Amino acid sequence: MRTLTVDLGDRSYPIYIGNGIRQNKELFDDAIHGKQVMIVTNDTIAPLYLDAMVAMLSVDYKVDTCILPDGEVYKTLETYGSIMTALLEAKHNRTTTIIALGGGVVGDMAGYAAATYQRGVPFIQVPTTLLSQVDSSVGGKTGVNHPLGKNMIGAFYQPQAVIIDTETLSSLPSRELSAGMAEVIKYGLICDAPFFDWLEQEMPDLMSLDNDKISDAIYRSCVAKANVVAQDEREGGIRAILNLGHTFGHAIETEMGYGNWLHGEAVAAGSVLAVDLSWRMGNLTDQDVERSINLFEAANLPVLPPVNMTLDSFIERMALDKKVLDGNLRLVLLDSLGDAIVTSDFPMESFNDCILDALEASKSVSSS
Amino acid sequence: MRTLTVDLGDRSYPIYIGNGIRQNKELFDDAIHGKQVMIVTNDTIAPLYLDAMVAMLSVDYKVDTCILPDGEVYKTLETYGSIMTALLEAKHNRTTTIIALGGGVVGDMAGYAAATYQRGVPFIQVPTTLLSQVDSSVGGKTGVNHPLGKNMIGAFYQPQAVIIDTETLSSLPSRELSAGMAEVIKYGLICDAPFFDWLEQEMPDLMSLDNDKISDAIYRSCVAKANVVAQDEREGGIRAILNLGHTFGHAIETEMGYGNWLHGEAVAAGSVLAVDLSWRMGNLTDQDVERSINLFEAANLPVLPPVNMTLDSFIERMALDKKVLDGNLRLVLLDSLGDAIVTSDFPMESFNDCILDALEASKSVSSS
Repeated sequence: MRTLTVDLGDRSYPIYIGNGIRQNKELFDDAIHGKQVMIVTNDTIAPLYLDAMVAMLSVDYKVDTCILPDGEVYKTLETYGSIMTALLEAKHNRTTTIIALGGGVVGDMAGYAAATYQRGVPFIQVPTTLLSQVDSSVGGKTGVNHPLGKNMIGAFYQPQAVIIDTETLSSLPSRELSAGMAEVIKYGLICDAPFFDWLEQEMPDLMSLDNDKISDAIYRSCVAKANVVAQDEREGGIRAILNLGHTFGHAIETEMGYGNWLHGEAVAAGSVLAVDLSWRMGNLTDQDVERSINLFEAANLPVLPPVNMTLDSFIERMALDKKVLDGNLRLVLLDSLGDAIVTSDFPMESFNDCILDALEASKSVSSS
Repeated sequence: MRTLTVDLGDRSYPIYIGNGIRQNKELFDDAIHGKQVMIVTNDTIAPLYLDAMVAMLSVDYKVDTCILPDGEVYKTLETYGSIMTALLEAKHNRTTTIIALGGGVVGDMAGYAAATYQRGVPFIQVPTTLLSQVDSSVGGKTGVNHPLGKNMIGAFYQPQAVIIDTETLSSLPSRELSAGMAEVIKYGLICDAPFFDWLEQEMPDLMSLDNDKISDAIYRSCVAKANVVAQDEREGGIRAILNLGHTFGHAIETEMGYGNWLHGEAVAAGSVLAVDLSWRMGNLTDQDVERSINLFEAANLPVLPPVNMTLDSFIERMALDKKVLDGNLRLVLLDSLGDAIVTSDFPMESFNDCILDALEASKSVSSS
C-alpha cells in the first residue's frame, strides 16, 4: 500500500492506494469519529462492493446505506436532496460519517451532502473509477450540476481520507478506464513531462491494468494533484491549471447533455483543443501536438469535438463557465509540454480558428 | 453609526449599526470586490427598499435582483435552487457578490446560495428584521429547512459585512418585533446579567422603537454573539449556548409547521422551558423564573408551548435536532441568570415533568 498526504494544515488528510484496501477496516476506523455511518453509492456499484463494506463496518458502527441511480444525469439538486432525506430518516446526527463508495458522481454528491448536512459532517472517499481515483476524490471539490451549467452548485470540502482500491478497476467498463486516463495524461501535460514520457511507454500495459503500473500512475497523478491543491485549495490561482481542457470540455458535455460524452472524453477532446491553441501561439512544436494526440488515442479517447457543435455553441457554453472572470474568458494553455499557464491573453482569431479547424476535421472524419 | 468586528482571522468582518445606513454606498463598496451584484430579497421587502438599493449600486455595478416569496415555508431546497437559476440566467461568475436584503429567511438562503454558488462567492447581509439583526445575520450560519427538520441543510459561511439599518424596523409588524426581542432577551439570560437588568427597565421603550435604545440593544446583542462566535465558529463547544430554548423551540416550530409559530416565539416558549428545567435542577431561584417569564411577556411573547403538543411529540422532534450527539440529548440550561451551560446531564424525570407541567398550564390557559 502506498500513502501520501494532502497538506492543508488542519484539513490535511491521507490518500491510501493499494489492492483490496476497501476491506482494510483500520483505514476506516482512523477516519470515523462517531458511531453512525452512511454509505452513499449507486445501483451499479452496490451489487459489487456494498454488502462486504456494510458487513465490515457494522461490527463497530450503526451503518445505513443510500443507493443512488447511476449516471451523471442524476447529479442534480434533487438527488442531493434524496441523500439528505435518507440521512434524516435514519436519524443521523452531526457526528455521522458519510462514505462515498463509487465514481466521481457519487463522490461529488456524497461530498456535497457531507459539506452541508447539518452544516458539515466528516466524509471518506472510496473512489471506484480511475477518473475519481486520480482526480475528483482528491482536493475537496464537491457539488452537483444545474441544467444551465456543470458543477455550478457546490462547496470546497475536504474528506477525512481517500481510500483508493485498485482492485475495483477490474470491474470498470473499458470506456470509463479510458475516460480516467484522460486526467492521468493531463498531469503529464500540465506539470510533469517525465511522467508524460513514461505514459507514452506504458500506455498499453496501463490499458490492460497491470497492477503495479496502474498503481504507479495513480500515485503519480495524486502526488501532482495534491501538490497543486496544497498550494491553492480554493482555486484562487495555480489550481486552475488542473482544468486543462475542461473549459472546452464542459462546453462539449453541456451541449451534448450530461452523460452522453463522459467527462474524461470531453476533457481529452478539450485538451487537444488547448494543445492546438498553445501550438498556434508558438508555445508547442508540431511534434508536441502529434505526441499529445497519439497518447490520447492510445488510451482510446476522442481527440476531436462532436461533429454537431458550432463555434457559437462553444462560445455560448464557455461564457458560463466558472473560469470566466468578469467577462474575460480565461483558459489553461501550455507554455511547453509539461508546463501549464492560465491566461486570457490569446488572440480571439486563433481561438476561433482552433475550434473551426477541429470542427472541420470532425466533419471530414464523420463523413469518411 | 456604531461598528464592531467579528474576529475570525482571515474571515473577520465588520458589523455596522445605524439609522438609514442601507443607503450608505461606501459600506457596500468596501465589501464588493467584483463588478456583478445579485440582490436577493422577498416580495414584502422589495417594494420598500429594493429600488433605492438598485439605483445606488447600479452606478458602479451590474446589478440583478432575485425576489423570493416571503415566508419560512419557502425556506426550501427548491427556493434555493431558484436563486441558483437566477444567478446562472444572469450569467453571474465567481466574482459576483450576493446581497441578502431581508429577514432571517432571506439571509439564510442567500447566504447558503453564496456559500455554494460555484463553490462560494462573497455576500453581504442587510438584515431588515430585529431577529436577523441580532441573530441570524451574524455568525455565518446559512441554510434551508427540510420537511424532516429545520436548518438541516446548510453551511458555515461568513459574510463580507453586516449592514444593520435600524430604520427598517419601522416597517416591521409588531409580532415580528416581539419575535426578535426573544433573541435579545436570550443574550441577557445566557451571558450578560446586567443587560438582562437593563432590558427589564427599558422594554417598554424598546417595544416602541426608541431609536437610541434599540441601537444599544442591537449593539449589545451583536457584541455578545460576535464574542461567542469568535471563540467557536463551527459550534464545537461554547457556541451551542446561543441555542438556549432552540431545541425545545425547534420541536414546536416543526410540530406546528414552519411559519405558524415564528422562530422567536418558539424560542421564547422554549427558553421558558429551559429556565424551568434549570430551576428544577436547583440552578435558579423562583424569582429568576418569574423575572424571565415577565420579561418575555413584556415583549408580548408566548411563555407556554402550544396546547396541542404532547410529551412524545417533543421527544420525537428533539431527537432529530442537530444538538443531539450520538443519541444523547444535550440541552442549553442556565447555571445562574446570565450564565449558560450545555449539558446532557439532567434527570429525565425533571425533563418530562417540565414539559408535562407546561402543557398542563397551556391547557388550563386555553380552556379558561
